[in-house]
Amino acid sequence: ENARELQAQRDSLTQKLQEVEIRNKDLEGQLSDLEQRLEKSQNEQEAFRNNLKTLLEILDGKIFELTELRDNLAKLIECS
Amino acid sequence: ENARELQAQRDSLTQKLQEVEIRNKDLEGQLSDLEQRLEKSQNEQEAFRNNLKTLLEILDGKIFELTELRDNLAKLIECS
Amino acid sequence: ENARELQAQRDSLTQKLQEVEIRNKDLEGQLSDLEQRLEKSQNEQEAFRNNLKTLLEILDGKIFELTELRDNLAKLIECS
Amino acid sequence: ENARELQAQRDSLTQKLQEVEIRNKDLEGQLSDLEQRLEKSQNEQEAFRNNLKTLLEILDGKIFELTELRDNLAKLIECS
Repeated sequence: ENARELQAQRDSLTQKLQEVEIRNKDLEGQLSDLEQRLEKSQNEQEAFRNNLKTLLEILDGKIFELTELRDNLAKLIECS
Repeated sequence: ENARELQAQRDSLTQKLQEVEIRNKDLEGQLSDLEQRLEKSQNEQEAFRNNLKTLLEILDGKIFELTELRDNLAKLIECS
Repeated sequence: ENARELQAQRDSLTQKLQEVEIRNKDLEGQLSDLEQRLEKSQNEQEAFRNNLKTLLEILDGKIFELTELRDNLAKLIECS
Repeated sequence: ENARELQAQRDSLTQKLQEVEIRNKDLEGQLSDLEQRLEKSQNEQEAFRNNLKTLLEILDGKIFELTELRDNLAKLIECS
């Protein structure tokens, strides 16, 4: 009878262990997916920032050129 | 003897189960952290996009005002 | 006979003098017109220059505002 | 006696005529100067207008390039 009890406990634990290990694999899968999503999101964010830096450089160029234009206009007015 | 074997298996399974359940909790914790990080990252990205939209509106305003300025300059030249 | 010669010369000179004085008045009129035209042209040129100075100030303002915009964009990118 | 009177008148008219003719030459000189000044002023005004037209074209170019920049920024924001 003690043996049957132990056998029942052992069988119950075996099943519980299987369930927890399955749950475990699923969690590891979710974790892996999330890590990929986060890495993808960070890469996209980095690419976005780099594109914005490029636009910022272009904007700097336009501001410089507008400043040259205002200087030329100022000279024209002064010498007229 | 059968009883002792069963007891040993049961004790072994109990320990294994504890280890896997601890691992499980840790994974759930990591998953929760990652989900928070991902949500935080998406919120920051959303706030960033909204700030950029505001800058875009301001830039539109400046372009409009520069266009008015060029129109006034064109009129001045024409009527001079 | 000498008297008649002198009289002829005097009459001739009188007529010549009238023609030159008429020519004179006409020249003074042309001179006055030209001086008015030149003054009007200079006034218009002055008004034109003043209008251009106003446009220059506005352009300076736009360049300043675009510089503020690029600074805000730079901060946004940096803090993202 | 009549001859002396006529002679005096003739001499007086001769002198008057000389004075008016000198005055005449001076007026013609002033007129010529003013016409030159007016033409120079109009040429300078024309050159000034042409330089301004060039600046206007450059300004148009800058506005166009800024518009391209805002379009690129808008696309970036939309696709992020």
